[in-house]
Amino acid sequence: MSLNDIAEYQAKRAAFINEDRALRRDYARSANRSAIELEADKVIRQIRAIEASSIWDGEHENIQHPFPGMEFLTAREVIIKTKLFKILTKMPKGALLHAHLDATVNVNVLLQLALQQPAIHVCASTPINATTIASTLPKFKALPKNQFSGGAGLTDPSYVANDWVSMRKARETFSPELGGPQGFDNWVIAALTINPNEAYKTHNTVTKIWQKFTSTFMTSTGLIRFAPIWPEYIREFLVTSIDDGISYAEVRINFLFKHMFGADGNENVPHREWIEMFGKVVNEVKDDMKKKGREDEFVGARIIYTTIRIISPEELEWYTEDCITLKQEFPDLIAGFDLVGDENVLKPLIDYIKPLLLFQQRQKELGLDIPFIFHAGETLGDGTKADNNLYDALLLGTKRIGHGFSLVKHPKLMQICREKGVMVEVCPISNEILRLTSSMPMHPLPIVINNGIPVALCSDDPAVFGSMGLSFDFFQVLVASEVTGLIQLGEMARDSIQYSTLDIEGKQRAIALWEKRWAKFVEEVANFDISDKLAV
Amino acid sequence: MSLNDIAEYQAKRAAFINEDRALRRDYARSANRSAIELEADKVIRQIRAIEASSIWDGEHENIQHPFPGMEFLTAREVIIKTKLFKILTKMPKGALLHAHLDATVNVNVLLQLALQQPAIHVCASTPINATTIASTLPKFKALPKNQFSGGAGLTDPSYVANDWVSMRKARETFSPELGGPQGFDNWVIAALTINPNEAYKTHNTVTKIWQKFTSTFMTSTGLIRFAPIWPEYIREFLVTSIDDGISYAEVRINFLFKHMFGADGNENVPHREWIEMFGKVVNEVKDDMKKKGREDEFVGARIIYTTIRIISPEELEWYTEDCITLKQEFPDLIAGFDLVGDENVLKPLIDYIKPLLLFQQRQKELGLDIPFIFHAGETLGDGTKADNNLYDALLLGTKRIGHGFSLVKHPKLMQICREKGVMVEVCPISNEILRLTSSMPMHPLPIVINNGIPVALCSDDPAVFGSMGLSFDFFQVLVASEVTGLIQLGEMARDSIQYSTLDIEGKQRAIALWEKRWAKFVEEVANFDISDKLAV
Repeated sequence: MSLNDIAEYQAKRAAFINEDRALRRDYARSANRSAIELEADKVIRQIRAIEASSIWDGEHENIQHPFPGMEFLTAREVIIKTKLFKILTKMPKGALLHAHLDATVNVNVLLQLALQQPAIHVCASTPINATTIASTLPKFKALPKNQFSGGAGLTDPSYVANDWVSMRKARETFSPELGGPQGFDNWVIAALTINPNEAYKTHNTVTKIWQKFTSTFMTSTGLIRFAPIWPEYIREFLVTSIDDGISYAEVRINFLFKHMFGADGNENVPHREWIEMFGKVVNEVKDDMKKKGREDEFVGARIIYTTIRIISPEELEWYTEDCITLKQEFPDLIAGFDLVGDENVLKPLIDYIKPLLLFQQRQKELGLDIPFIFHAGETLGDGTKADNNLYDALLLGTKRIGHGFSLVKHPKLMQICREKGVMVEVCPISNEILRLTSSMPMHPLPIVINNGIPVALCSDDPAVFGSMGLSFDFFQVLVASEVTGLIQLGEMARDSIQYSTLDIEGKQRAIALWEKRWAKFVEEVANFDISDKLAV
Repeated sequence: MSLNDIAEYQAKRAAFINEDRALRRDYARSANRSAIELEADKVIRQIRAIEASSIWDGEHENIQHPFPGMEFLTAREVIIKTKLFKILTKMPKGALLHAHLDATVNVNVLLQLALQQPAIHVCASTPINATTIASTLPKFKALPKNQFSGGAGLTDPSYVANDWVSMRKARETFSPELGGPQGFDNWVIAALTINPNEAYKTHNTVTKIWQKFTSTFMTSTGLIRFAPIWPEYIREFLVTSIDDGISYAEVRINFLFKHMFGADGNENVPHREWIEMFGKVVNEVKDDMKKKGREDEFVGARIIYTTIRIISPEELEWYTEDCITLKQEFPDLIAGFDLVGDENVLKPLIDYIKPLLLFQQRQKELGLDIPFIFHAGETLGDGTKADNNLYDALLLGTKRIGHGFSLVKHPKLMQICREKGVMVEVCPISNEILRLTSSMPMHPLPIVINNGIPVALCSDDPAVFGSMGLSFDFFQVLVASEVTGLIQLGEMARDSIQYSTLDIEGKQRAIALWEKRWAKFVEEVANFDISDKLAV
């Protein structure tokens, strides 16, 4: 065995690895790297390696088995102390392409917004006491003034089940034994979020955690679907997203309920007003950003119209017509159409094939373009209806795939996504908390990336998961792979704008602004003094 | 939207699904199905569907979240009560291609074999009592007669640390407070196996469970690496494998230690005698089967020579030469060569590139063929040394890949495996207990199958996992996929023979015998009366 033979093998090996990675989108553009980008990438990889042993290999109070990319709800307190996370909060993230509006605002903020509204009332199915509190959910609703009640508080033994109590009063009169007003807040927040005990112990299967997950929306909808709160909620979502480096959003709004509650406490605000308010807030935020000299940080937000897969195919026809009407009135605000809910238990796309084909036909007749941006394959199933949704999503020409967790099982579908440029909206933390994967190292994301399919990292329901913004999702992806570095995160951020529904001009502008911020960001990272600042 | 449009869509959809599945090996041969095979497959799918709700959707004592394909160590007691499992125990499994001999025999049987040998002694690093028992491992060794000691038993407070005590005496004198002889047995068995608490709680990461896993081999080696036990161990492995429907085995034997302990208690039995004994037992089992009129159930067993990735590249040259010498003396018994141990922490293949290339060159000179059958990619890493082992395994022309858990991340390597017919030895239960996947629905197996790569299901270390035979692994795979049915299991069993190292003639014979048994088996399954016999 000569040295020559070894050298020859090493050369063959390097070429082989390159060949295996050739489909990757970052690989295809690898010639374009600036020296400063390469340096920044190196710095990030060094910090990651240092923190892998200094932080993730040690012992932590309350964490039995720390490792990079571990269960988010357990790791959160550790993550926020890392240098890596602090750097990522400053990264320009591009577009947020997959998030459900109802679950995008910190639950503490929502609580404060609600407490400002005297119309908001709360009820429970039983008086709340030490025995019932853990298993009873608060239900919220705006009431007209003439229905405001003067009954007993929720923790009063004389409370009549399902009686509406003013939220403020319920909070103020919440029994001291249950923590008083703070106890009320904790109870509400527990109903709006998933905690580690639920995700990793009591509800540790896809089926069970979805039950808890769904219940958080049942709780929040009574607060958010109220005209005085709605615009403030959207404003908070946009402002905090911008602060996290998100410059554009396509947010899924659930239009299942045909009306929102108005300021008068009556359920009388139609969909067109929801969208009008949305558009108004977007413009106000743009104006605010301009006033602050930060107009480059936000190019706008649009809506993906969604309803839930519980409705009948006949009912869906009402929603698709509704969507068409709204698109005609708000062409710039309606970005696409989707059906949501637990794919494992609700109706598959194929059940809706008639109204969906009809929807496409109607658009053609009317000269409209409302792309499907379907949730599909958010499942562990192999050949189940949820898994098979991927076939229909692609046959129906979906522009992107929401989740596509089971896509990697399908060689033909992977090929189509690569060749036709169908992006996958990957929601790492959501997938983990909803128990499709136990941790990030088990997540199929590297398979999708290595097959050259465009990927955007998305937060899905950050309010429920406590993962506000995109920094946490970017963090979890970064620490779980030796192939992914800062450059690869940057490619995904750039692609998130590229595969948005913005028109060509809008995309060009958004990408140009992103590139400018990216250049500034990588320069800061490249100049980061590792030795000096890494003590945590 | 006309009915015609819907029909057209449905036809397109069916073709699309077929196209996506076209690479599958069972799909390629789907024209060959007999009516009886299709019927048997249907029966199995029906039983699976019934048991999914009657057994896996209910509540069980000690099981918080039952579901099909759940954690094996928790589910085992439920699995063995299912009809599906009982049927699978009767299935002809083909070849067992990935198992480590040291971990193939029920630990209770090993314990009995050891207790028959007065030479076997045991020691511990401290006297065993209620405080030390859980954290102290027994260590076994055969001693020469003149070294038999008369010292205190292990639980005697006067026991001197690391003193060798006769195993029988240690057992008989084991303190009644610790359960007496039964307590001794429990202690030894706990050291030889992984229990659910370890896998799913105290050692619930790949790193930690590998520490426990490795320790089981440290314990068992002192019992197995003893000439009077060795052939009986092999016999037990073969006989129980045959009873589980395995008709041929290629078993990995660890040749790291250069000698075995002889009947005289001295470490003086060289590798050639290990193999000689192995061959002798294989022939005896064949003869026994013939006497019982069951000669069609067993065609033989061969050895994959392995050593551990802790040795230096220079040391490896001794082993490759040793392997060559053994292949020359036992051409029919040496089937291939492998390097084993935790890929995440031990040396990667590339570190051994010089001796491995030299090994190939030496074989060419000598006219030998000892295929590499490498463990590679048994990891959650993405771009780590363990993941990168896949590149070297394939560049070095590995005949099959052991585990290949991370193979699915590599599009080029997947293509090569499909096109060149490199089989993946998938070990479902091993992967789950060693924490690469949390349950079978999370396992990447469907990706491998859908990409048309040949797969053999393997048990790896059934003695450590309590998953004797292959029925448990087949069961876990069957219940975790709607695509996989009996036909697909049959295809994998057939392929296990096809991709063995048997010569053409040997394969033809083995496959013909398997086909005969398969036909009989599917007939029995097809005639299974579901309604009558499904009450569990």
